[in-house]
Amino acid sequence: MMALAHVTIVGLGLIGSSIARAVQERLPDVTVTGHDASSEVRAAARTLGFCDVVADDPAAAVAKADLVILAVPVGRMADAAVAIAPGLRADAIISDVGSSKRGVADALGQALPGHLVIPAHPVAGTENSGPAAGFATLFEGRWCIVTPPAGAPDEGVAAVTGFWQALGAKVETMDAAHHDMVLAMTSHLPHLIAYTIVGTASEFEEVTESEVIKYSAGGFRDFTRIAASDPVMWRDVFLANRDAVLETLQRFNEDLTVLQQAIRRGDGAKLEDWFTRTRAIRRSIIEQGQDDAAPDFGRKH
Amino acid sequence: MMALAHVTIVGLGLIGSSIARAVQERLPDVTVTGHDASSEVRAAARTLGFCDVVADDPAAAVAKADLVILAVPVGRMADAAVAIAPGLRADAIISDVGSSKRGVADALGQALPGHLVIPAHPVAGTENSGPAAGFATLFEGRWCIVTPPAGAPDEGVAAVTGFWQALGAKVETMDAAHHDMVLAMTSHLPHLIAYTIVGTASEFEEVTESEVIKYSAGGFRDFTRIAASDPVMWRDVFLANRDAVLETLQRFNEDLTVLQQAIRRGDGAKLEDWFTRTRAIRRSIIEQGQDDAAPDFGRKH
Ligand SMILES: NC(=O)c1ccc[n+]([C@@H]2O[C@H](COP(=O)([O-])OP(=O)(O)OC[C@H]3O[C@@H](n4cnc5c(N)ncnc54)[C@H](OP(=O)(O)O)[C@@H]3O)[C@@H](O)[C@H]2O)c1
Ligand SMILES: NC(=O)c1ccc[n+]([C@@H]2O[C@H](COP(=O)([O-])OP(=O)(O)OC[C@H]3O[C@@H](n4cnc5c(N)ncnc54)[C@H](OP(=O)(O)O)[C@@H]3O)[C@@H](O)[C@H]2O)c1
Repeated sequence: MMALAHVTIVGLGLIGSSIARAVQERLPDVTVTGHDASSEVRAAARTLGFCDVVADDPAAAVAKADLVILAVPVGRMADAAVAIAPGLRADAIISDVGSSKRGVADALGQALPGHLVIPAHPVAGTENSGPAAGFATLFEGRWCIVTPPAGAPDEGVAAVTGFWQALGAKVETMDAAHHDMVLAMTSHLPHLIAYTIVGTASEFEEVTESEVIKYSAGGFRDFTRIAASDPVMWRDVFLANRDAVLETLQRFNEDLTVLQQAIRRGDGAKLEDWFTRTRAIRRSIIEQGQDDAAPDFGRKH
Repeated sequence: MMALAHVTIVGLGLIGSSIARAVQERLPDVTVTGHDASSEVRAAARTLGFCDVVADDPAAAVAKADLVILAVPVGRMADAAVAIAPGLRADAIISDVGSSKRGVADALGQALPGHLVIPAHPVAGTENSGPAAGFATLFEGRWCIVTPPAGAPDEGVAAVTGFWQALGAKVETMDAAHHDMVLAMTSHLPHLIAYTIVGTASEFEEVTESEVIKYSAGGFRDFTRIAASDPVMWRDVFLANRDAVLETLQRFNEDLTVLQQAIRRGDGAKLEDWFTRTRAIRRSIIEQGQDDAAPDFGRKH
């Protein structure tokens, strides 16, 4: 990988602080500067010590950086880019970690004309947010998707790829539009569904909230984890990746209608057949190291 | 609790074998006889040793039992009851663990006229099934819902309640119809949604199955766990609890339409508001000990 001496991370929440921690552990020769728009987050970052320097000013924060990573909500990428622009080295590579890529690539391209922008998305996270929630091993064994714009120089792509590999991630390259469709299916739609059902349960008059909580171990509690994810981050994802999300949602609705009809008609064969096919995917996910084989996610019982 | 000397468990899969194991650990003076319709399962049960006796004949299996627990799929309860009927003591209590209660109560009442039937449902499980999947601590700290029929004698209800408490469960009593509505919301609808989305993802042409698997850590993998649950068990639950499931599904569909419209219109305020409200339920579930506080279910990263 291209020798990186200085990395600046803008946005020191779950993802930004996890990157900083992973660099400290795995790339001890690289200097990490951090910046966050929030003075409270900057203060927390100083206390937690995962950056070499925490800068108050965004342009000053990036002055020495070979690589700048924007780790702010998708709807704040443009602001963050405008704020760092005056300080950027001409040869700096700018990347990000946004959960949707087409809109972010456009916003960064417009905000940073003449700069090399190589967007990326580490497919890893938890339901928590903020600087205290991060940890160095978050990206180990997970995939990071790099979405280079057309004509991006190979060295730039290689630098971003090498950086994520150094943090323990596996890297795949694809175009931004395909990324957005893949993630709509594997991440954005699941979050939308989880947010929906948790809302439904909490408003359903025939079952009290206390009952919903008590009997959540029957399956519901799994959905509440996802639906506890950061509201601002997810609002931005749905606004930014609207078309792909709506397309996957339409398919989901069709399938749900099929199963609804099977239940109404008492068509047990159709239900059993459907439920049998969905088992295979779980097996592959475990075989490929993307989830734990322990029953019930390894929860203590 | 009423002194139980002999418990018989019919159906030695995940739930039945977990009950047997828990009795061996926590009620060592109680003799456990097991029976399963499948000779393979009976052989496995003998090898695994979680019953004192494994009987080949259902009527013989219950001959000494104070308490019989039917732990077969909901659609097999009637068969299992008919098979044990000739062997039952007149004063035996018959209970079950079925995930839906109204239909099961009717079926057992018809199959066992003159016998005392006190249905129950331990709200605990994993995505695995079969005799090897069970473990003694499955019910610890979880709720078990007992749904006594109108006019059931207090001693019978107390015996079933005491039995589940002895296995580490907390017990709540409610009528079968309310149980079915509560569980439709907290367990059956979540399973239906998870089965649906996993099916949708695996059929979606724009994203390969390999991509779905690779990038499942973005949220999708959580749904695959639930959608790996036993197809026959779940087919039966949806057939047996049709009306309540369809009622919760209608509410879910309404809410999903609201969020779909908010995405289409770019109504970020509505999305953020919804996503903020759903966080509170997660906190309560953790505070009440119904899930682990560790991020991402405590998965290793
Ligand atoms: N969480 C996940 O699971 C996950 C996974 C992969 C990718 N991502 C992506 O990673 C990015 C960050 O997510 P996260 O989970 O780390 O969020 P987070 O924990 O909320 O952290 C984001 C941080 O960025 C700060 N910020 C907002 N606007 C800023 C600006 N203009 N300049 C500098 N800092 C700013 C925020 O400060 P305030 O608190 O003051 O707003 C906050 O401290 C998002 O684009 C998200 O889509 C998230
Ligand atoms: N899994 C959960 O999370 C969970 C939680 C709470 C309650 N429940 C309820 O518990 C019950 C059992 O579920 P499970 O997960 O333990 O299923 P399981 O692991 O599939 O075990 C069920 C066992 O019952 C046997 N069986 C079927 N019909 C029978 C009959 N007529 N007589 C005797 N044995 C028979 C089955 O044999 P074959 O394999 O030959 O069919 C199988 O070995 C179901 O009513 C379910 O709704 C399940």
